Amino acid sequence: MNKRMIIYILGRMLGVEGVVLLIPALVSLIYREQSGFSFLIVAVILGLIFLVFGRKRPKNTRIYGKEGFVIVALAWLFWSLFGALPFVISGSIPDYIDAFFETVSGFTTTGSTILQEIESLPMGINFWRCLTHWIGGMGVLVFVLMIMSFDDENSMPLMRAEMPGPEADKLVPKARNTAAILYGMYFVLTAAEVILLMLGGMNLYDALVHSFSTAGTGGFSNRNASVSFYDSAYIDGVITVFMILFGVNFNLYFMLLIKEWKSVLKNEELRAYLGIIAASIVVITANILSMYENVFHAFRYAAFQVASIITTTGFFTADYELWPELSKAILLALMFIGASAGSTGGGIKVCRFVILCKSIRQEIRKILHPNAVTVIKLNGKKVGQDTMRGINVYFASYIFVLIASVLIVSIDNFDFATSFSGVLTTINNVGPGISKVGPVENFHMFSPLSKIVFSFDMLVGRLEIIPFLIILSPDLWRKRF
Amino acid sequence: MNKRMIIYILGRMLGVEGVVLLIPALVSLIYREQSGFSFLIVAVILGLIFLVFGRKRPKNTRIYGKEGFVIVALAWLFWSLFGALPFVISGSIPDYIDAFFETVSGFTTTGSTILQEIESLPMGINFWRCLTHWIGGMGVLVFVLMIMSFDDENSMPLMRAEMPGPEADKLVPKARNTAAILYGMYFVLTAAEVILLMLGGMNLYDALVHSFSTAGTGGFSNRNASVSFYDSAYIDGVITVFMILFGVNFNLYFMLLIKEWKSVLKNEELRAYLGIIAASIVVITANILSMYENVFHAFRYAAFQVASIITTTGFFTADYELWPELSKAILLALMFIGASAGSTGGGIKVCRFVILCKSIRQEIRKILHPNAVTVIKLNGKKVGQDTMRGINVYFASYIFVLIASVLIVSIDNFDFATSFSGVLTTINNVGPGISKVGPVENFHMFSPLSKIVFSFDMLVGRLEIIPFLIILSPDLWRKRF
Repeated sequence: MNKRMIIYILGRMLGVEGVVLLIPALVSLIYREQSGFSFLIVAVILGLIFLVFGRKRPKNTRIYGKEGFVIVALAWLFWSLFGALPFVISGSIPDYIDAFFETVSGFTTTGSTILQEIESLPMGINFWRCLTHWIGGMGVLVFVLMIMSFDDENSMPLMRAEMPGPEADKLVPKARNTAAILYGMYFVLTAAEVILLMLGGMNLYDALVHSFSTAGTGGFSNRNASVSFYDSAYIDGVITVFMILFGVNFNLYFMLLIKEWKSVLKNEELRAYLGIIAASIVVITANILSMYENVFHAFRYAAFQVASIITTTGFFTADYELWPELSKAILLALMFIGASAGSTGGGIKVCRFVILCKSIRQEIRKILHPNAVTVIKLNGKKVGQDTMRGINVYFASYIFVLIASVLIVSIDNFDFATSFSGVLTTINNVGPGISKVGPVENFHMFSPLSKIVFSFDMLVGRLEIIPFLIILSPDLWRKRF
Repeated sequence: MNKRMIIYILGRMLGVEGVVLLIPALVSLIYREQSGFSFLIVAVILGLIFLVFGRKRPKNTRIYGKEGFVIVALAWLFWSLFGALPFVISGSIPDYIDAFFETVSGFTTTGSTILQEIESLPMGINFWRCLTHWIGGMGVLVFVLMIMSFDDENSMPLMRAEMPGPEADKLVPKARNTAAILYGMYFVLTAAEVILLMLGGMNLYDALVHSFSTAGTGGFSNRNASVSFYDSAYIDGVITVFMILFGVNFNLYFMLLIKEWKSVLKNEELRAYLGIIAASIVVITANILSMYENVFHAFRYAAFQVASIITTTGFFTADYELWPELSKAILLALMFIGASAGSTGGGIKVCRFVILCKSIRQEIRKILHPNAVTVIKLNGKKVGQDTMRGINVYFASYIFVLIASVLIVSIDNFDFATSFSGVLTTINNVGPGISKVGPVENFHMFSPLSKIVFSFDMLVGRLEIIPFLIILSPDLWRKRF
């Protein structure tokens, strides 16, 4: 284990966070808010950490898969630990565990909140809260990769450890260029949403924070009533479309750029993803029809909520807690499924389900035709043994973490729907659940222990479990570190 | 596909059911109940079916794995379809779907009921209801194998398709002898429980039906208040111990018979099973302590409920619906885990979880030591690729069936805890759930559609999904049948 290199990289990453904190500080300055000093204080601390740990490059810079996982897990943890400080110092969220929960929720693009009142927050603080979504969306590390110069051989273990989905591909030979292309497309899509929202009458600030939240599939808003505050079919429509867009594998946008239309149209995950969205919207629209004036209204709210939940964004325009149980159950199932691999969305990811379905079909074929040779293919490519094993291990760990978390959270003695959907919504980085953590409710009433469990679930869910299993493994610490 | 052989075996199996129905008919005769004629009518029908389909042995008697799965799935379905008739004919359960639900619940040893009043049922009818548990416990097919003479090459596909757990072993070279040994041990243990319950003051009838239910890990009782009716620490204790015993892999009892103590003591599934039981009892006892007079009382109810749920029996001595959420969540987790492979209990089975845990540890090792060769071992034996794949496919299908069932059942618009725990308790063959399907409630209020879904889940859960995936596979029906 290359301990020096881990510390060096973490030092540099925290330095970058210090620089990023200057953006909300600027926003505070524009609005002449005193709370802006909290960003500067933390930026100075992070700057000192950078000077101590991130300046001198170790002689041996080689890192492998295992260091990649350790760095990724610790990077997300430290960014959250320090990113929470401005909330505490400014007095916006006095309790540190609450602030940590909120920051983890931001970086992991979950969007669960412990705040009961959002609109009275200083503009700078709220800007930082939503900016964490945007940064976390494409991944703290990919972001840092783009800014810092790394050797290419050192970048891939990091990208591979962090990219959502069963396989990480480089779009172009150099990892750093891949990061730049991903962020470029991310930036363009975000900017497009900002402009479209402003055309619908939103002011720049609101358009920015909502676009950050959409892009990261996070769900934080600067309005207590979330997107329903604007009560505009146009804004609902724009956000619905962009949520669905940000739930698509970004590699497909790259394919579009280089005009590989065919492979985009034939992409099995994309088809399944859009198919699930369409089917869910149809069923929910029919199910809630009697609660709304007409089909158009029912469709508008159904489409928004389906897009918000499957992409794990978590905005709301309707209190779906009042919808019939079938609609709520569909939304819970969508939470579980999640968005596409390689998107900013969370959850188990559509392509894992596609592969699992195929493995079930393969098993049946094997029983019916014992001598036939069968392979599982995705988009025409064979799914390797390692990928299959990875998916199965992920799935098993996911279920274990889910059960253990529900057990611990149950100590708080809230009803089963609250505990279960609270864990489900955090581990899948969605945001709201049902019952007492429904869309118009929040997480403030849980005990500190539960809040720590939820924070852990958010991190574990965002990094797809394995990095945290690695740093929690006694095997890692048993050897001389 | 050897269609003739499938029909022949099904014909013979239904003939055996006709003979079995004479047992409750005899009970009805003893109590001089008119409802006994319902058994005779169905027995005659089944006898005719036997004469038409089960007499003439086809020329080609060879069957393979795929026929094994088809026979097993259809056998359980037909036994339930015909086994439901006495309830309808006698008027005890006038609605056929209700009667079918009750019979499936019996044979699959689930123990969920649609009856609101049990004690007014005729003695013969209630005897049949509980006898289905006993027959289903060791498996309708193993039972039939014991009685009918099959070629050995034809028996193994059937046993393998039906035995709970990831791998089926023959204890002795001949499958028929294996069946006889299993049923012998099953019979001895059941008889021991009957005697011990009668020593505690139960009458023969009550002791018989409760022993049938315990042996099959079913959960039907002839008392509305289940085992709490007797309010006896001795009876609670006897049933607790026997529930735990029937949740152990029967192969281990065979090992004890041939004095292989060591392999019993070192059995990893047994250790995990007993460990989970002990830990759950300790936590629940502490959690419910304030609700009971003293530790002994809390322990007695905790132990009974833990044993009842993990073995998927479903008896109750306390309304655990009133317990704190942590205790309820532990019971739900135990439902999910289930008993040991090769026992009469349902659920996913402890050994599958043990293997999944090991596969997670293996994955971590692979990342930490990329060049090390790692194998997964259970009880010192290597777990093969096929077994691993089987477990993963089972797990994935299980989750799919669970989600789809919850969605359909949600149409009835009961709260999430009811729909979710209702599906969980039926697919794992436990019996009661939480909320509106809690221990003192039942399934009568669901729509016919939901009752059919629950019945399907019970069958799918008992046969560990694959047989039903096979008969529902379009591939099977596309070819000339």
